[in-house]
Formats: sequence, structure tokens, C-alpha cells
Amino acid sequence: MSMRELALARVYQLIEPGPVVLLTTARNGRANVMTMSWHMMVEFEPPLVACIVSDADYSFATLRATKECVIAIPAVHLAPKIVNVGNCSGRDVAKFEKFGLTPLPAKRVAAPLIAECFANLECKVADSRLVNTRNLFVLEVLKAWIDPKQRNPKTIHHHGYGKFVVDGEAIKLKSRMR
Amino acid sequence: MSMRELALARVYQLIEPGPVVLLTTARNGRANVMTMSWHMMVEFEPPLVACIVSDADYSFATLRATKECVIAIPAVHLAPKIVNVGNCSGRDVAKFEKFGLTPLPAKRVAAPLIAECFANLECKVADSRLVNTRNLFVLEVLKAWIDPKQRNPKTIHHHGYGKFVVDGEAIKLKSRMR
Repeated sequence: MSMRELALARVYQLIEPGPVVLLTTARNGRANVMTMSWHMMVEFEPPLVACIVSDADYSFATLRATKECVIAIPAVHLAPKIVNVGNCSGRDVAKFEKFGLTPLPAKRVAAPLIAECFANLECKVADSRLVNTRNLFVLEVLKAWIDPKQRNPKTIHHHGYGKFVVDGEAIKLKSRMR
Repeated sequence: MSMRELALARVYQLIEPGPVVLLTTARNGRANVMTMSWHMMVEFEPPLVACIVSDADYSFATLRATKECVIAIPAVHLAPKIVNVGNCSGRDVAKFEKFGLTPLPAKRVAAPLIAECFANLECKVADSRLVNTRNLFVLEVLKAWIDPKQRNPKTIHHHGYGKFVVDGEAIKLKSRMR
């Protein structure tokens, strides 16, 4: 595996900018993947990430039951696959095979990493108090991986109905904020 | 006021992409503003937005007590002000005056809109079950405003320590996702 481990203290730098991500789950040896962009950081370290997984999504029951998932972050070259993954359900389709995504074994969870993504976060559910009423999961990131071969990956941000904005120029300002 | 009302069903298109935003609060006639980028959509309509406001932030106690705020979304030309707002606390500084931000009266909440921002969302706290343990507020957006004079505003996304990525090109893909 070409992934390199990333310090947990740096995970927020991946999630805070708001990229469209993929979420993988697995149960009984069968893996699934969905597209997600309703997520946010909750705590720096150990890194906590909140996300919404609708109870209409096939992944919902698996995530609730197994309490494990992987958040995989794709760069813009994967945009067509990201949309294809979001346009169908794991109820009907074996999405890894159909869309040519490569599952890699994770270290701490049964859900797979995605080889094509530049970052992968192994997560367990840390707080499920808002799951039943809000579909809101709080995840703890147990292990984080980046692909050092994908340098300066550009992510995409969803504006609704298939409009995505790609990362543009980077600017640096004198901030006291972490 | 030059702001035009925006349909509540379209609020998610502003929050889902993950922009750095400003959060205003008010108590006893005194308004404050902070910089925030830990937020996500929770529901389309009525629009619910979750956010993390640290209990170390001066805004925390006001938000918890008044249960009201405004999420104001700045475009990239405001980047230096956004950082200045984040670099100090309302405990010490009257930030609207100091940084030349113009408060406008909201319709449904005491917290002010920010005239310079291209979008303003009037919010009330809808769920505070995770406030004490996670600093996580679920807000309902009661009213949304956009400034029609700011066309195609580019937002900024925080990658940590004052590095921001500006919105780049937009792409359109055939998505069944809302």
C-alpha cells in the first residue's frame, strides 16, 4: 500500500475546507460506498468529525450497526466517479466493482480505504445521541492516511444539483487561528 | 437594505460547500462577531445547520443564552477582515467598529446581519443536546438574505494556520443528487 500515515492532529486540515467525500462501510464481507458532503470537524485531537447519513441511504443501517466507516477524500480527477457513486444505491449496485474503485484493507476498521483517494480516515462512531432524531453521527478518526504521490490535490465542493466548485488559488494570511 | 430574500430551500447550496463564515450574536444591545468554519448542513427544509462554537469563544455564552445568531458569508475580498475577526476576542474588542463591518438589523433575531457579506442567515438554536459535551449547536435558519449586487461571489476555505483556498472553476455533472 502506497498510503503514508498522517498525524491525527492534521486531520482537521482535510475536513474543515468542506470537500465532497466518499464514505465506505462494510458488513458480512460486503463493502459499500456513498457520496457525502454534510460533514464538519468537532474536535482537533483526537479528531472528531460529525456527519449526516440519511436513513434513506443504504449505508445508514450498516454504519449504525457496525459503528465503523472510512471517510475517503477524492481529488477532482475522480469527479465523474463521485457523481456516479452518488447517483445509485448499494441496495442495487456493487459500487466498487461497477465504478472501478479499489478497496484496500484498513488497519482498525472493517470498512475499506479507497486506493484512488488522496486521503483516507478510519473512523468509529463516538457519539450516536443524535442519530435517531437527526441522522447525525459523531465519528472519531482512529487512523489517517495520505497518498504522497498525489501532490497538492484539488478537491471539489458541492453547490447543489451537480454543480461543483473546484479548489482555486491558495492564499496565506497572518492568522493566530490553528 | 439591499439584501434580497433567498428561498429557505436554497440555503444548503451556501453552507454545503464549506466556506469560512462569520457568526454574529447580540446581547444587551451589544453585538459581536466571530470567524467559524466548523459547520455543516443537517436538513434541507426547514434548513438546519450544525456548528461548533467553542466554549472558549466569547460568543458561546451569548449563543447559548439568547439561542439566536446570524451566519454571514463573506466573499474573498473580505479575507483580511475575516482573519482579523478571528485573531481577537469580543471580550477585548468591539469588532464591528474596529474592523469596519456594518451591522444591519435582522427581521427575526437580535443578532445583526453584516452588510458586506453576500449572504446572511438568521438562525435560532433548534437542538442543544450536544452543547454541553461537544459545543455542537443545531441551528434552524429562519430567514435567508443574499446581496444581488455581489454576483458569483468566491468564498474561501480554511486549511489551517491562515492558509485559505479560494473557489476556483465551476463544473457541472449530471447528478441525481439535490
